[in-house]
Amino acid sequence: MSEFDFIERIRVRIARNAFKPTDLLLGIGDDAAILREQSGRELLITTDLLVEDVDFKLDYIPPAWLGHKALAVSLSDIAAMGGTPRFSLLTLAIPLASAECGVRSAEFWDAFLDGYCALAEAHQVTLIGGDISGMPEQLAIDSMVLGQCESGKSIRRSGAQVGDAVFVTGELGASAAGLQLLLNGERVDETLADAKQQAMRAHLRPEPPVAFGQALGQSGLAHAMLDVSDGLAQDLAHLCTASQVSATLIAEAIPVAESASLQLALHGGEDFELLFTAEAKNEAALQRLAELHQMQLTRIGGVTLRSDAQALTLKQNGIAQPLTPQGFDHFRR
Amino acid sequence: MSEFDFIERIRVRIARNAFKPTDLLLGIGDDAAILREQSGRELLITTDLLVEDVDFKLDYIPPAWLGHKALAVSLSDIAAMGGTPRFSLLTLAIPLASAECGVRSAEFWDAFLDGYCALAEAHQVTLIGGDISGMPEQLAIDSMVLGQCESGKSIRRSGAQVGDAVFVTGELGASAAGLQLLLNGERVDETLADAKQQAMRAHLRPEPPVAFGQALGQSGLAHAMLDVSDGLAQDLAHLCTASQVSATLIAEAIPVAESASLQLALHGGEDFELLFTAEAKNEAALQRLAELHQMQLTRIGGVTLRSDAQALTLKQNGIAQPLTPQGFDHFRR
Repeated sequence: MSEFDFIERIRVRIARNAFKPTDLLLGIGDDAAILREQSGRELLITTDLLVEDVDFKLDYIPPAWLGHKALAVSLSDIAAMGGTPRFSLLTLAIPLASAECGVRSAEFWDAFLDGYCALAEAHQVTLIGGDISGMPEQLAIDSMVLGQCESGKSIRRSGAQVGDAVFVTGELGASAAGLQLLLNGERVDETLADAKQQAMRAHLRPEPPVAFGQALGQSGLAHAMLDVSDGLAQDLAHLCTASQVSATLIAEAIPVAESASLQLALHGGEDFELLFTAEAKNEAALQRLAELHQMQLTRIGGVTLRSDAQALTLKQNGIAQPLTPQGFDHFRR
Repeated sequence: MSEFDFIERIRVRIARNAFKPTDLLLGIGDDAAILREQSGRELLITTDLLVEDVDFKLDYIPPAWLGHKALAVSLSDIAAMGGTPRFSLLTLAIPLASAECGVRSAEFWDAFLDGYCALAEAHQVTLIGGDISGMPEQLAIDSMVLGQCESGKSIRRSGAQVGDAVFVTGELGASAAGLQLLLNGERVDETLADAKQQAMRAHLRPEPPVAFGQALGQSGLAHAMLDVSDGLAQDLAHLCTASQVSATLIAEAIPVAESASLQLALHGGEDFELLFTAEAKNEAALQRLAELHQMQLTRIGGVTLRSDAQALTLKQNGIAQPLTPQGFDHFRR
């Protein structure tokens, strides 16, 4: 299989996507893709890199799930801006040794593309470009997504106001618990649905709350938002720094996943849930919006005046203690 | 140096860029960058992956030149669409072993960013995002550029017409000759400017014809265009396939670089010159445009009716022979 054959394979696979956006003028196959811009709209651009043996291991992630996750992580970023994902680009650095045969050959990539394209089609996202190269050792995947929203509706991480309540979607910690299970030798079994399997699935095949993020953007109710990728504490610290505020979390309120602990919920990372602040008086409206999208939404704390001493405080059993993020750093092993 | 320190380093470096585009609403630092769209405009999106030991070797490319080249390859794609490059994203997979110290430490990355940013600033391109991860072995760089042009002015590779003349900018083959020299142990010496040094510089520090590509787009004179990245023959074959035509090249007309041979000019790749077709009667106007941009422009052949037998023909000493592309395939070693 040559580089050009591989690209042709991708073109054939994505041609099965029946959805044809009218503002896409040219997709894969030229020096660049072409989109038609439109006044009154903002364009959101994000990219996420996944590296074998750093972000995933091929011996525990099914190829279709890897394709799914590669897109999911970037969809999550667009959701966290309150936007609608529209277009994607996919860059693959493929180990040379296995480009011709073996586990990462045509069969692997067909499954990978099936997982990627199924998620793209579910959200009417169109793959419009990317690049492919050989790679001496590990597989690397760079996943880019372009989203859109009405002008002025995007939600930055810098808009939190003192007095806001802090909300989070879903449950936290399952992804980190799942990673721990995988590293301990547990494996995915799609015929089972117990807590262990759910945790591994949360890690390997996350479902970012795309529709709810978009609805939040349209509602104008959220002041600041990001997705929980580095861990609740780390990401809330990012939000606080950007907004020049501090925040207090109520330990008992944090929605800890069945398979996880409070520690994993606070510091685990890769939950791909939405973390946002909004006026407390809008809680009922937000809960109705969440119900409409069949999302669990939990109020877990509040935004306070910026304290130089400590950005984050955790209240547990009524006792307040400083909370120091222990989130993931890609430069640590 | 942590991942967040590294990103902060990049933010500080790019803050030195005095150019602030009015349609950039939010750059680096959130889940996604935000651009303001505008009616009557097309958005062009391209991405290029550079992998250590496949696309470059760290023992022969100075870090500042690697930074330059990482951006140059994507600027070339936007030029080849007739567009103006505006924004860029940069994704880096950095070998873990050397993230803390050694040749690829702060010093390496400061030089890399200087090379990248100097080229960006020269073309008023603003870095708006990207991602960083550790990488077990080789360095990988994914370089994305967003460009723009007036609606309807972008130049695809599919518009070539039978009877068009084929044009190419600059000279061909120097980059491939330079790569050969580097692989044979020759090294860059910035105090010299002989043919060998020029060839190595052509390979390691290409200067894509950004302004001329943009001017061609505005002129409306080119029917089809791409950049010479895989080799003249390979890229012309791509253009012919997309346009459903064939083409004949005149060997004696091809502008072969001093250090190169006709063979390298035909099949060498990475020249990052512009290859386009246009009506022959517009040659004088095109030459004036090229002069204005201090570009060498050469008419090297013509577009013919699609022949199933052979897309490309090479005429040498009056004798016509089939020309088979031998361009670079990233999956071959």
